[in-house]
Amino acid sequence: MNHPKAAILITGDEITMGIVNDTNGGYLAETLTAMGYEVQSIVIVQDNAQFMIREMTGALERADLLVITGGLGSTFDDITLQTVARYAGRSLICDADYRESLERSFKSRFRRKAPADLERQAYTVEGSTILPNAVGSARGCFLKMGAKEIVVLPGPPMEMKAVFAEAIKHMSHPEAPFMRTVGLVDITEPEIEKTLEESLDKHENVKFVTRVKYYTGPTVILSGPNEEQLEEIVTSLREKYGENIYTTTGEELADVVVKMLVERKKTVSTAESCSGGRLSAILTSVPGVSAIFPGGIVAYSNEAKASLLSVRRETLESFGAVSEETAREMASGVATVFGTEIGLSVSGIAGPSGGSIEKPVGLVCTAISFGKRSWSYTDHFRGDRETIQLRAAHTLFKRLWRILWKEDYTG
Amino acid sequence: MNHPKAAILITGDEITMGIVNDTNGGYLAETLTAMGYEVQSIVIVQDNAQFMIREMTGALERADLLVITGGLGSTFDDITLQTVARYAGRSLICDADYRESLERSFKSRFRRKAPADLERQAYTVEGSTILPNAVGSARGCFLKMGAKEIVVLPGPPMEMKAVFAEAIKHMSHPEAPFMRTVGLVDITEPEIEKTLEESLDKHENVKFVTRVKYYTGPTVILSGPNEEQLEEIVTSLREKYGENIYTTTGEELADVVVKMLVERKKTVSTAESCSGGRLSAILTSVPGVSAIFPGGIVAYSNEAKASLLSVRRETLESFGAVSEETAREMASGVATVFGTEIGLSVSGIAGPSGGSIEKPVGLVCTAISFGKRSWSYTDHFRGDRETIQLRAAHTLFKRLWRILWKEDYTG
Repeated sequence: MNHPKAAILITGDEITMGIVNDTNGGYLAETLTAMGYEVQSIVIVQDNAQFMIREMTGALERADLLVITGGLGSTFDDITLQTVARYAGRSLICDADYRESLERSFKSRFRRKAPADLERQAYTVEGSTILPNAVGSARGCFLKMGAKEIVVLPGPPMEMKAVFAEAIKHMSHPEAPFMRTVGLVDITEPEIEKTLEESLDKHENVKFVTRVKYYTGPTVILSGPNEEQLEEIVTSLREKYGENIYTTTGEELADVVVKMLVERKKTVSTAESCSGGRLSAILTSVPGVSAIFPGGIVAYSNEAKASLLSVRRETLESFGAVSEETAREMASGVATVFGTEIGLSVSGIAGPSGGSIEKPVGLVCTAISFGKRSWSYTDHFRGDRETIQLRAAHTLFKRLWRILWKEDYTG
Repeated sequence: MNHPKAAILITGDEITMGIVNDTNGGYLAETLTAMGYEVQSIVIVQDNAQFMIREMTGALERADLLVITGGLGSTFDDITLQTVARYAGRSLICDADYRESLERSFKSRFRRKAPADLERQAYTVEGSTILPNAVGSARGCFLKMGAKEIVVLPGPPMEMKAVFAEAIKHMSHPEAPFMRTVGLVDITEPEIEKTLEESLDKHENVKFVTRVKYYTGPTVILSGPNEEQLEEIVTSLREKYGENIYTTTGEELADVVVKMLVERKKTVSTAESCSGGRLSAILTSVPGVSAIFPGGIVAYSNEAKASLLSVRRETLESFGAVSEETAREMASGVATVFGTEIGLSVSGIAGPSGGSIEKPVGLVCTAISFGKRSWSYTDHFRGDRETIQLRAAHTLFKRLWRILWKEDYTG
């Protein structure tokens, strides 16, 4: 299978200075790959015409498609359009109607006269197709230079996505490959890769990459021209790693867990201390969760743990807030409060302060209350405050998945 | 001020395929900039020796420092070390002691024999300095080629940070510039940039970049060789935009709000529906918040809103869950439950489903209960489910800041 080549060019001093962390590169890389392009490079450069032209030249020597984002704003350092025009040997044209509409909307929004620079966004490259922007004022453009295609998009992620959707209508489409994404837990990357390398010997044209998700385990993305072939490989993985696979269709672990809960009509509620709401935030990031999630309680203070979750004061005194005993009572307590079959709880020391020798930063106790049964765990997570909070939350989802899976398994 | 030039090279098919969204580039760009380097480019390429060598060559023609991340793992596609060795014309040396320790720790962790590939991580480039990795098994290396310096780091962000901290000990340090970061709300980027361009006419050597934070407003980063000069500019900004500035020292809005609350000993609790815990998650991401945040309630179901937050059923029936009336009762209700002076609430339609003509996806009602006073708001946020949840939460922080600021202002 011969993939057309694509290159991504992102501009912005705010990115090369590390003030803004670019996410457009990742989004475009994922979308272009899914469309069947081979993305050769993602290059981020300063807002500097010379650098941009050097990278455009290099990229289009190797790639069939160049996607450029950023520098379409209305300030002096937004030089992408004039740079593309210069590179393509074309001129810039001002769209008077659009300029007026920009000025009108600014006036109505901020009740004052629009700054002169605003008109920068009314310009476009001669002989290019204007790409409308449904969620902002910076429009993109699409142009062809012989067989090569150039797409210019605004920098703000939401606007970039909206305008890229317009660009796709004009791009010449390659043939998209088939893809399968397999998510695993409790197994290492080298082990799964070794297995795949062996099984891929008899499947040419099938490529794979692995990513390690910090909070769950490795994910394997298989791609190839033949759907049955991929299904065959997935089946062989199931045979070997059935107990470790939570998805073969690219879902996140949280989505899988929520789907299982919805299917089995099992309701869940959350009691959080050190995770501070991240557990419920992850749950509620899944559409449709409301069917099984009435809510949760963030009990940061011991007082709240006692009064809202009915954690016994003796438990807090003799074992402390960060203990499996407290976690168990939080889990069963929240299940009672919300009348859910399952209760999840997290209590730990996220740091940076609050640690001790017996209970260091990163120590996290979690519990799952499931009907009459319950499980509790103690982990020591490494990382900064947020990493510890996220690892605690995701590790709990992993364990709930195991429990649901086993239950399923043993009927 | 003459900045030494730096380039960042990141490798990984998982990144060019968009499976992993790189964050190392942003972290390194920010750190190197703060150290006084001018970061010229961040380049992400496939795990391909030819591509890597092309980029290394180009980068070191222009830059004094090249930082490479990724490809130090133990699988077949981890080719960074041999590629660097090839580029530098050096050989790879195996560290037998380290290989043994790798095998030992694998065995003790997974209770089975280590895969052969593990030994890949025991190799290092001849004549380079080994950079230890305190949080993982992939060690980095530092090497000089004449006046040029090359730093090689592992890809997982936590390991990259730990090893980069070791690299800094060996890098030749430039003179770090002074920096000031000013955060603003309720003002547009062109307006603030216009003001700065004018005031910078009389301050040469001072550079600035702006970033637009999606959920608050523009942030301005000033850098220059002279601290007093920056202070002067910040003062002039304060005179002009005092009401819009929440920080002149680079703090996040949430940090500023928490600090104000802690200083004034004002306690706060949260009641969340559509934001699903994000409000409390943002609050609890700030160290020391426990002094003023006993907890919050995620009341996803109407039943929970009524029973836990004492929202009157008539209110829910006549105005609906997504209404300022419900939001006000949620805010005062949660303040009562936790006995806090301030109660914050969010109720809205995050989508993708659940919208109607009167109450479309993105409609969010929020409220602030503050002692005897209270405020409520209705917004319509654009974006996907998570964007709407985050915008709702951050907008509420912005409004709380305004209230705290005004209170401060009027004494």
